[in-house]
Amino acid sequence: MLSAEIIAIGSELLTPFKTDTNSLWLTEKLNEIGIEVKLKTVVGDDEARLEETVRDAIKRSDIVITTGGLGPTEDDITRKITAKALDKDLIFKQKLLDDLRERFKSFGYEMPEKNRSQAYIIDGSEVLPNPRGSAVGMLSDLSEKYLVVLPGPPRELKPMFEKYVLPKLKESAGDIVVLRRSLRVSGMGESSLDELIAPIYTKYKNPQTATLFNKTEIEIQLTAQGNTKEEAESLLDELANKIADKLGMAVFAKKGEKMEEVIGRILIEKNKTLSVAESCTGGLIGERLTEVSGSSKYFIEGSVTYHNDAKIRNLSVPKDVIENHGAVSGEVAEAMALGMRKKAETDYAISVTGIAGPTGGTEEKPVGTVFIGYSDEEETKSIKLNLPGDRYLIRWRSSQAALDYLRRNILKKEDD
Amino acid sequence: MLSAEIIAIGSELLTPFKTDTNSLWLTEKLNEIGIEVKLKTVVGDDEARLEETVRDAIKRSDIVITTGGLGPTEDDITRKITAKALDKDLIFKQKLLDDLRERFKSFGYEMPEKNRSQAYIIDGSEVLPNPRGSAVGMLSDLSEKYLVVLPGPPRELKPMFEKYVLPKLKESAGDIVVLRRSLRVSGMGESSLDELIAPIYTKYKNPQTATLFNKTEIEIQLTAQGNTKEEAESLLDELANKIADKLGMAVFAKKGEKMEEVIGRILIEKNKTLSVAESCTGGLIGERLTEVSGSSKYFIEGSVTYHNDAKIRNLSVPKDVIENHGAVSGEVAEAMALGMRKKAETDYAISVTGIAGPTGGTEEKPVGTVFIGYSDEEETKSIKLNLPGDRYLIRWRSSQAALDYLRRNILKKEDD
Repeated sequence: MLSAEIIAIGSELLTPFKTDTNSLWLTEKLNEIGIEVKLKTVVGDDEARLEETVRDAIKRSDIVITTGGLGPTEDDITRKITAKALDKDLIFKQKLLDDLRERFKSFGYEMPEKNRSQAYIIDGSEVLPNPRGSAVGMLSDLSEKYLVVLPGPPRELKPMFEKYVLPKLKESAGDIVVLRRSLRVSGMGESSLDELIAPIYTKYKNPQTATLFNKTEIEIQLTAQGNTKEEAESLLDELANKIADKLGMAVFAKKGEKMEEVIGRILIEKNKTLSVAESCTGGLIGERLTEVSGSSKYFIEGSVTYHNDAKIRNLSVPKDVIENHGAVSGEVAEAMALGMRKKAETDYAISVTGIAGPTGGTEEKPVGTVFIGYSDEEETKSIKLNLPGDRYLIRWRSSQAALDYLRRNILKKEDD
Repeated sequence: MLSAEIIAIGSELLTPFKTDTNSLWLTEKLNEIGIEVKLKTVVGDDEARLEETVRDAIKRSDIVITTGGLGPTEDDITRKITAKALDKDLIFKQKLLDDLRERFKSFGYEMPEKNRSQAYIIDGSEVLPNPRGSAVGMLSDLSEKYLVVLPGPPRELKPMFEKYVLPKLKESAGDIVVLRRSLRVSGMGESSLDELIAPIYTKYKNPQTATLFNKTEIEIQLTAQGNTKEEAESLLDELANKIADKLGMAVFAKKGEKMEEVIGRILIEKNKTLSVAESCTGGLIGERLTEVSGSSKYFIEGSVTYHNDAKIRNLSVPKDVIENHGAVSGEVAEAMALGMRKKAETDYAISVTGIAGPTGGTEEKPVGTVFIGYSDEEETKSIKLNLPGDRYLIRWRSSQAALDYLRRNILKKEDD
């Protein structure tokens, strides 16, 4: 098994505020082709330490990947120091400079002189194009070893790595296939889940199983190794199906999809439309639904009725229902869902009203009290939740619960 | 300034699922007493790599902190390898073994023989008690340098570090106070920003300046050292003011606040209200605004008019304006903002309509074409943007641009 090291470069990654996440993604991609990550380093704009780190890494490991530090400013030292660590020169590429000028021009700017530094590459290295940014990457083939130099922003790094680096590493890595699959579960606690499925997954050494708790849901992650893709897939299928059967409707995604993608798929399959009325989530549900490309096919309208007047005006929530039950109540959630559905003329509508905190809680309705409303042609109903967490988490959990309530209601109708 | 390195030990930290977070907390604590973290490493149960890492770290840095790998199992190699890297022996402490047996007894268990390994410490090191776990820490004073060995679980590491390590490091570090401040900038590219302010900040060694690019904005991070808090504050004030003067209105936050917090502060100060009409951002602007606690004071209503019918029905956008100019146009953005403001009876309204992609672009209006509308009592207007990036980034940038357009318009009125 080939070994890799990842070096993240940037002083901001040595502050208390920023952590290197590129290495997690890179590790996943490397693991998939059977390459093991043996060491990770984070280093700032300290030239001596960076040079030593790169030199040591190349000595010990088959593949060394650096991320970041390719920008045009003084503290972007990666280009210079990686070349030095390889005892190579940086050479100027007119073509890269022309491309850079062109890139700036296409956005209506003139290239600042500073960006000229981005037209230099390590002598003998392959240039890795970057359609999403001004910093190209580099790949140096060091006979049996590789140094790969990537830009820091994940949006630039990921396509570059997948398109230009992965195929090359795959050739060197040989024929082990490592595949992962995740099942996503909603509406269940971590330990009750583990009690149900541990008797199943502990019987398997391959795939390996890990359960991760993530904001509002549990991810059950399976990792299988095989000699072929088919072999690994069939190992995954077997265990994934056993676990999914045990957990039933709580599994909302069998292949790692997000809740909003699952909702989208169901609505498209059934050719149905949706509208959303939000209070404490403030637009989050709409935002999540419309993050899915193609959502305009089923998502018609959202209404963020933060103020009570807006609930009355937009969703025809009767004023006396608010006065009698309070804005945070099942009655108001139902009126919001019903009003939204009728107004937007959609097949389904969901609504959320609750207290996200940190202020606004009362003894009767503490922070975390959230009502989710649901309406279709046949019925309008609501559920009450008591959600733990801070403002951010309560809002996120509310949005997830609302989408999951919709999912379960649609699928239940199907079973009837 | 003393320098530190942090070495996180544990194979689970080399998987795609787990990241080392202890180092962020440790960095914060170290920075507060004027110690700079120069390098971080994550290493698994690879003995040779760990030994090399510890040896190199001690050579280059004043303080080396390891976390994790102190458990009783085979793959907990920290004790053995740190001793080896210092060329010291591990010595057995009867007292530690007695304590361990006592600890297990207090939970009603007999100590497993495996745990005996936890009674060995690096020769000459100080034992750091661990009331929350079975692994004690160690502190080796290497004359002018320290090696600190801590357990991995944050709830064990934190109290141990604060009680036994921090006071000792503080003595060595002296009376330095380190403070950070960040300025946030919108509507400017990284290199044009740097060209403007590099002539200012490069004159200062203290504070140090770092610029970070983050989705839609640039953060200028200043770190100042002083003998007192007041001294560090005044150093920050001086440079922050110079930079802010140079950049003018592009600086939206002088003390690290988010755009939505800045908007909230301005609206509260002026006692004004806001509503938002969103198309391609799908609720993101509402979500951001309402993420701020207390936003119900000024945020009245949002309308996610994804479908054209919803724009007509909810915002009174004239049908012929959509037909003549297209849903993605300045005319529609203006009609959305005006309609929203009138309907919600707010002082301000902003709107967004655009093409977030990946599909839906045309030659005339490619993906990334976004119109932002603004309306107040005196005027209604719009701007057109050509935003780079994928769907996620275009939506985020649109939301930021809309909030910034609002901010600039409100503040401009003030200047008039």
